[in-house]
Amino acid sequence: MLPDWISHHCALPSERHRDAALARQDQLTKPPGALGRLEEVAVVLAALQATGTPSAERVPILLFAGDHGIAAQGVSAYPPEVTVQMLRNFAAGGAAIAVLARTLGCSLHVVDAGTLSREVIAGVFVDKPRHGTRDFSREPALSAAEVAFALECGRRAVARLADHAPELIILGEMGIGNTTTAAAIAAALLPCPPADIVGSGTGLDGEGRDRKARVIADALALHGLTGGAPVDGVIGAVGGLEILAITGAIVTAAQRRVPVLVDGFIVSVAALVAMKLNPSCRPWLLFSHRSAERGHGIVLDALAARPLIDLDLRLGEASGAAITLPILRLACALHNGMATFAEAAVSGRET
Amino acid sequence: MLPDWISHHCALPSERHRDAALARQDQLTKPPGALGRLEEVAVVLAALQATGTPSAERVPILLFAGDHGIAAQGVSAYPPEVTVQMLRNFAAGGAAIAVLARTLGCSLHVVDAGTLSREVIAGVFVDKPRHGTRDFSREPALSAAEVAFALECGRRAVARLADHAPELIILGEMGIGNTTTAAAIAAALLPCPPADIVGSGTGLDGEGRDRKARVIADALALHGLTGGAPVDGVIGAVGGLEILAITGAIVTAAQRRVPVLVDGFIVSVAALVAMKLNPSCRPWLLFSHRSAERGHGIVLDALAARPLIDLDLRLGEASGAAITLPILRLACALHNGMATFAEAAVSGRET
Repeated sequence: MLPDWISHHCALPSERHRDAALARQDQLTKPPGALGRLEEVAVVLAALQATGTPSAERVPILLFAGDHGIAAQGVSAYPPEVTVQMLRNFAAGGAAIAVLARTLGCSLHVVDAGTLSREVIAGVFVDKPRHGTRDFSREPALSAAEVAFALECGRRAVARLADHAPELIILGEMGIGNTTTAAAIAAALLPCPPADIVGSGTGLDGEGRDRKARVIADALALHGLTGGAPVDGVIGAVGGLEILAITGAIVTAAQRRVPVLVDGFIVSVAALVAMKLNPSCRPWLLFSHRSAERGHGIVLDALAARPLIDLDLRLGEASGAAITLPILRLACALHNGMATFAEAAVSGRET
Repeated sequence: MLPDWISHHCALPSERHRDAALARQDQLTKPPGALGRLEEVAVVLAALQATGTPSAERVPILLFAGDHGIAAQGVSAYPPEVTVQMLRNFAAGGAAIAVLARTLGCSLHVVDAGTLSREVIAGVFVDKPRHGTRDFSREPALSAAEVAFALECGRRAVARLADHAPELIILGEMGIGNTTTAAAIAAALLPCPPADIVGSGTGLDGEGRDRKARVIADALALHGLTGGAPVDGVIGAVGGLEILAITGAIVTAAQRRVPVLVDGFIVSVAALVAMKLNPSCRPWLLFSHRSAERGHGIVLDALAARPLIDLDLRLGEASGAAITLPILRLACALHNGMATFAEAAVSGRET
């Protein structure tokens, strides 16, 4: 059973603040629209935050890690122990997202939502129903109770951030094998054959990708999932603990009126699941980057999302969202700090 | 006569530091290439700065303003007095680039390289041979001495920054009518009809664009300039003072081994002129964004440039380069701050 809260309605953005932000943009000392997508970002944030002065300064980064039984099928270029090794690297500050969080002044919150780890790692919050998912090429990855636990894990993580009064939340993931899980979820939910959505993940070659696509196609057949399958069946059969935790975090953030900056392929698939479970969360999602991972474009299209940047990133860990954050911050600074034509005594258009 | 220094050779990037940076990228705790273009940026900066720890913290922004006689032909949506009004807005801190510079911790240096202004504006450095260019639809825009003055103006501005020990320089422009001047320069230098390169500038409609293209085509005929014309003839006939100041600044920065982050259409045209005058400056140019201004793509192609972001920006003022700067900074932070596989005890690839 899915938790009740998952379908509770999320508020709509404030139309009043959107209109006021649009009106202000037209008065700033620049040709109308000359700041392009930065104007759009400022207006969207103003509407979501219901404010005249949008801001993306207090932005905690929530990172969920999980392991995947499907990794036993040789679908990754790296061994499963890398997930736990990277947990330590997050906590020690050496991973990409740790460097980014430090540089950006974001707090980094690492949650073990289902890795194989049985050790205590300082700086990692453990909140998992089991150690890794089951191998979905043989059996359902998760029981209904485990699915619910993972969604609640994401909800609890967002609730723990309340004291930070986040203006925006960045969500990320780590888990060897999780592009396979994400591709299986997307292929089951969308009318899209696995071969079209399967990418190289951490670095598979063409042969490895073919193998990964076959593993997914066979698994979807085993579980009786064809494109457009109902979401509650899909997330049990081929779900991932960190992915569903992100889904729970997305819905919770939207219900609390906190915008979410979506990272790459995996987080976008978690957002697709969130959309299927509760479409009212969609306005609260901003999309950061277009990943080099092959299936991302299809998932973005399904979400009607147009990310801000495209820099051939394919790391995960929320790194693409973090790299995009300064653009949001500058959009807010421009919106709040520029002079109007009247204030600066600058002439308007002649035509 | 062009100044002698314009053709002095610029140094090559350091191959040794490039190789070392590439080797380091392969050791950082991420799949090879997973940080996409940020890896490329870090490696290029390491080679240009000849360092193991590239940096883009000390980045002065140099803004050159100028007026254009061609503005009398109704080629802009705004009246010419806006150039000087915006000079005051830069100095007062209300313009987009002033907000961006403040937010990014960059010093902003505004140079009046040839506006119509006859007043003293606090915070603006005046360095001009005349007040605005001549109307190039009737006569050459600049004499040979004025062209040389403008190039020297850019050189002097870069020299004044020496005490800042810049790690990178951002160049920008302001000048009502300067997309017309820039389009005329590009159409004369490249094998490209004006109609293909003329854009909306600050906001012309289709009819205005057609008119602007006709004005340029007629002027190029008047001056006997067809696509592929020699650069020294072009910059006198249809040049702009702020544009040529940027050309001088680019060549000077490259000769001083300081990389330049190129902004949008106008600065790219100044870079094209710099390339024609001194091709050895090319390795020192990084390209920030793809502008919404129509001709930018053609000029970028001529420079074999692939900008980092594409956010429908078309403001000028160096704003697109400033908005891109945090991506360079994060690329450096990742390159310098991430742990290696050995340091973090993370397993490498299996395949």
